Amino acid sequence: MTLRMSSLFVRTQKEDPVGAEVASHRLLHRAGYIRRSAPGIYTWLPLGLQVLGKIEAIVREEMARAGSQEVHFPGLLPADPYRKSGRWEAFGPDLFHLKDRKDNDYILAPTHEEVFTLLVKDLYSSYKDLPLSIYQVQNKYRDEARPRAGLLRGREFIMKDAYSFDIDDAGLDASYERMRVAYQRTFARLGLPCLPVKATPGAMGGSGTEEFIYPSEVGEDTFVRSSGGYAANVEAVTSIVPEPIDYSLSPAAHVEDTPDTPTIETLVAAANADHPREDRAWTAADTLKNVVCAVTHPDGTREIIVIGLPGDREVDLDRAAGTGMLGNGEVELEAATSEDLAAHPELIRGYIGPGVDLDDQVLGLEGTSKVRFLLDPRVVDGTRWITGANEPGRHVFDLVAGRDFAADGTIEAAEVVLGDPAPDGSGPLELARGVEIGQIFKLGRKYADSLDLKVLDANGKATTVTMGSYGLGVTRVMACIAEEYHSESGLLWPQHLAPADVHIIAAGKGDDIAEAAEKMTAELEAEGITVLLDDRNKVSPGFKFADAELIGIPTVIVVGRGLAEGKVEVRNRLSDEKSDQPVAEVVASTVATIRAAYATADAAADAAIAEGAAADAAIADDAELTESIRADSSASAR
Amino acid sequence: MTLRMSSLFVRTQKEDPVGAEVASHRLLHRAGYIRRSAPGIYTWLPLGLQVLGKIEAIVREEMARAGSQEVHFPGLLPADPYRKSGRWEAFGPDLFHLKDRKDNDYILAPTHEEVFTLLVKDLYSSYKDLPLSIYQVQNKYRDEARPRAGLLRGREFIMKDAYSFDIDDAGLDASYERMRVAYQRTFARLGLPCLPVKATPGAMGGSGTEEFIYPSEVGEDTFVRSSGGYAANVEAVTSIVPEPIDYSLSPAAHVEDTPDTPTIETLVAAANADHPREDRAWTAADTLKNVVCAVTHPDGTREIIVIGLPGDREVDLDRAAGTGMLGNGEVELEAATSEDLAAHPELIRGYIGPGVDLDDQVLGLEGTSKVRFLLDPRVVDGTRWITGANEPGRHVFDLVAGRDFAADGTIEAAEVVLGDPAPDGSGPLELARGVEIGQIFKLGRKYADSLDLKVLDANGKATTVTMGSYGLGVTRVMACIAEEYHSESGLLWPQHLAPADVHIIAAGKGDDIAEAAEKMTAELEAEGITVLLDDRNKVSPGFKFADAELIGIPTVIVVGRGLAEGKVEVRNRLSDEKSDQPVAEVVASTVATIRAAYATADAAADAAIAEGAAADAAIADDAELTESIRADSSASAR
Repeated sequence: MTLRMSSLFVRTQKEDPVGAEVASHRLLHRAGYIRRSAPGIYTWLPLGLQVLGKIEAIVREEMARAGSQEVHFPGLLPADPYRKSGRWEAFGPDLFHLKDRKDNDYILAPTHEEVFTLLVKDLYSSYKDLPLSIYQVQNKYRDEARPRAGLLRGREFIMKDAYSFDIDDAGLDASYERMRVAYQRTFARLGLPCLPVKATPGAMGGSGTEEFIYPSEVGEDTFVRSSGGYAANVEAVTSIVPEPIDYSLSPAAHVEDTPDTPTIETLVAAANADHPREDRAWTAADTLKNVVCAVTHPDGTREIIVIGLPGDREVDLDRAAGTGMLGNGEVELEAATSEDLAAHPELIRGYIGPGVDLDDQVLGLEGTSKVRFLLDPRVVDGTRWITGANEPGRHVFDLVAGRDFAADGTIEAAEVVLGDPAPDGSGPLELARGVEIGQIFKLGRKYADSLDLKVLDANGKATTVTMGSYGLGVTRVMACIAEEYHSESGLLWPQHLAPADVHIIAAGKGDDIAEAAEKMTAELEAEGITVLLDDRNKVSPGFKFADAELIGIPTVIVVGRGLAEGKVEVRNRLSDEKSDQPVAEVVASTVATIRAAYATADAAADAAIAEGAAADAAIADDAELTESIRADSSASAR
Repeated sequence: MTLRMSSLFVRTQKEDPVGAEVASHRLLHRAGYIRRSAPGIYTWLPLGLQVLGKIEAIVREEMARAGSQEVHFPGLLPADPYRKSGRWEAFGPDLFHLKDRKDNDYILAPTHEEVFTLLVKDLYSSYKDLPLSIYQVQNKYRDEARPRAGLLRGREFIMKDAYSFDIDDAGLDASYERMRVAYQRTFARLGLPCLPVKATPGAMGGSGTEEFIYPSEVGEDTFVRSSGGYAANVEAVTSIVPEPIDYSLSPAAHVEDTPDTPTIETLVAAANADHPREDRAWTAADTLKNVVCAVTHPDGTREIIVIGLPGDREVDLDRAAGTGMLGNGEVELEAATSEDLAAHPELIRGYIGPGVDLDDQVLGLEGTSKVRFLLDPRVVDGTRWITGANEPGRHVFDLVAGRDFAADGTIEAAEVVLGDPAPDGSGPLELARGVEIGQIFKLGRKYADSLDLKVLDANGKATTVTMGSYGLGVTRVMACIAEEYHSESGLLWPQHLAPADVHIIAAGKGDDIAEAAEKMTAELEAEGITVLLDDRNKVSPGFKFADAELIGIPTVIVVGRGLAEGKVEVRNRLSDEKSDQPVAEVVASTVATIRAAYATADAAADAAIAEGAAADAAIADDAELTESIRADSSASAR
């Protein structure tokens, strides 16, 4: 059915919506694709549904190609399976929950691992049934503390979530790899530059996981990459841990008065002046900074911890919270408040040091304090530090890790900075920002264990199934495509994702113009080309052009004054070309252009995978993308 | 992609699911189309999604044909617009509601009138923008007290809901009629016999409404029809109200002792023996029975009422509750309990009578009782009754309505019975049961008023828009199709709605059989025919045949022993025909059969509408349907 501007349910707007920070939010609203229903909750207008439908079709085709079968779960789920998996608690306040009239607990599904597990348990019982891959395209619900940026972080959003079921680890590895390729193909067909980066599993659990990141300044995720092909989000970067140092010759620790050393710089200067090292000057990296933080666990309990790290590093609260090393589930981490510190008088601000018993003097955290003390992994045995003596105005010198103090554990809490070494030795890291548009997980047996999904193996023995889970944010992807493809005057879709293939503008009042536009529309539609026809008869050409620029269909045909000479103007907004074409030829040439655009998009997937297992490297090597990441990196480097 | 039984995510089951009462529930579960997630909440397996997709496609095509544009609203909606319309209360406990982390109220949408109204208010401002018709296919949520019968009455279900917006009543009438035709076309294409019946608006509000009923014993709705074309659900049937009777010559009322008259029969016998009428014998229809009932309003308050009706009638609690005459919103009505009666000592069981002051004796409800007294509409002025005297063992005779007593209002509470006259004079009514699969409403200005949706009219004056709303239960329709099309051994879909066009069974172990089945599959798929191929190599032909019968694709091709002679068996389960066909011809003949089936289904819509405005009558005249209704009627007549 022809989309006609005269009747299409759309009204373009000149004004940005209140509070819109990013281009996709502004333009999808102004061009009449979406409307906000509530914070982070959107309604789809006809133009928006057209684009969304094209994206979903590509996602479904690539899932089918990867051998995944579509199913569909409810959005309203009983709470019990999520209690059994521990996620009723782990999701914390992000979980929308409610009771039915019989007082039973329900949740609005944030993701569906538990119920997919139960469904497979219901249907399958033998290793012969595996491997299995099933997926759905479905509404997800998360009560985000700060929904933002339109479709980029919503509270009700569409996700494609797939799940794999295998009898053993080798099977899981193969399922994971197949899905990884499907993601690369999908994003390539969607025209979205994208990088798989190592990530941490968070509340999902499991062993290995990667995020697919669309590099963009509007993203909330910071990730790193090396020129040698390493890529990870900052939560997943691991520090290179040095070898332990022989401390048999290190001097004994000694406490010294250190007046007037309120900062690390003044402390280092005083140390070099009054207590010089025998071998070289003290640097900030020789001081051990102990930072008091407060962890909020999913059940709401608040825990005070101390994080020790080299003095030349800052704590990255988000990174530390995201590592999964602070507890199960989604934790929040913030700097301790003065109330927190008041509750722990043994923690003397500016002079906190690790627990050590030295000359019968209890210095520190161990023994007198109930707080967990976690160390940066670079603080290996034998390293030698200046740190607080747990007395105002005093520091301890030559305190040696492993000899004089220990910790309750390690934590990757230090901010990753430009130039840090990649953990795989592939060179220095650069930083960039991006949007997570997909994440794939080797879940392993976490959910199968907690929900008792077993099948009989070849020997008739009950064996726990191993699982993978594979999410792709469909509505978020649409926002990213709008971020990637727009101009100053509006959206500018890739040809194969535009809400219609061609935008025809009847620019002028004559009946001949209207008739020619109608005829061209009918001829294109007979060839399977979809048309948005601007047939409004009391709207000036200028307004029509502005609407067309805002709506963003790249191929625009203007039927106007030139018609008298048998010509129409064809605009390609992506290449910024305009040409006058004879009316007699324009249908055939347009059909050819549009078909070629679809074919090119499909071929992009093959190209992206052409180099086989090195597909991610291939994407990473893409010159334009690398440039984009570089630009991001320099802009966001801190 | 070929559906292959060897890998398809399905397991058929011999056992019915626990508590399954109806064929659609039993068979959709056993054939592996759906699984229950929670009471009234279902998960869709691949076969189920295929059929659901075909139904949705037909619904969308007919909506587009009717000029309706697709949009999509969230399922999670802010409560505020529903507060403004009064439906936050009116839906009562059927509404799922929850709070977000900021303590704001949200609901899971039961239907979307309010937010569609607000969206149009956001986008449109002029009469020139109208008429508008928009729709969505979307999850709805209702916390039914008694979810039942699988997909027939669920708590999360898929509904197509459309809304029309017009500047005036004539526009609304035209929009309503266009949608009514779209419904008739849709159900005709779906092969579902269906009758539009007059209904009551219930919590929706508005002026006129019709339900589309699929006549079936498994339905919960009782409806009536006359041979002259009248059809209504029992809530909407109106009694024929007789003309008032001149009571100037009626005898005065008098109270009499009536010992030993515990029933209407004994009362009538005693009346005829001891206090005979001058003109004819008293009958049960001359007694006024006063029934004490309790109304539960949506806000939870409980109200005691008395319903007065002729003694030869029973109260139909559901009908009375559904009329909308008892209060706003969804009310529940039940017989008063002994606690209720104890709280109203003035209501003397067996001897309750209407309020009247006679010979200085206060008999009744008025004055001494706080309860509402509502009368059957047949109790018109001048009718003459025997009824309770509000004293044990005594009745009042010759009590004349309008002269001796009045009521607080009327109510259609009497059970409609076989042979009652149709209100339009089109003959006696017969009763049947059915499933409501759609309902269309002329809402009028209720929602536009409460949410202030106005546009400027041709004179620049702000005018309230008038609306219609049009629901169609997509998942319920699928259940009804399964009810209509199944055999003892399984589902048996109309050809064009089957999960695949053809079911090919490789029945035998030879490689030649497997190869021939694969080749035939490829050749059919090359012609656009979808195939479910049973390629399992350790499953016996008998099991494969049983699975095929359960799954219910009508066209089955068996590649088996006959292959040696170059033949395969083609089964049409709908016509119960089998034939051996040469392998060389079977692809061409099958393609022709399948294409013809799709064309026939599409043509059914044209046929259904062919008689123009009399389309509903045409459907009603369908011989098979009439027979089905008759069968229902005789089975359910009470």
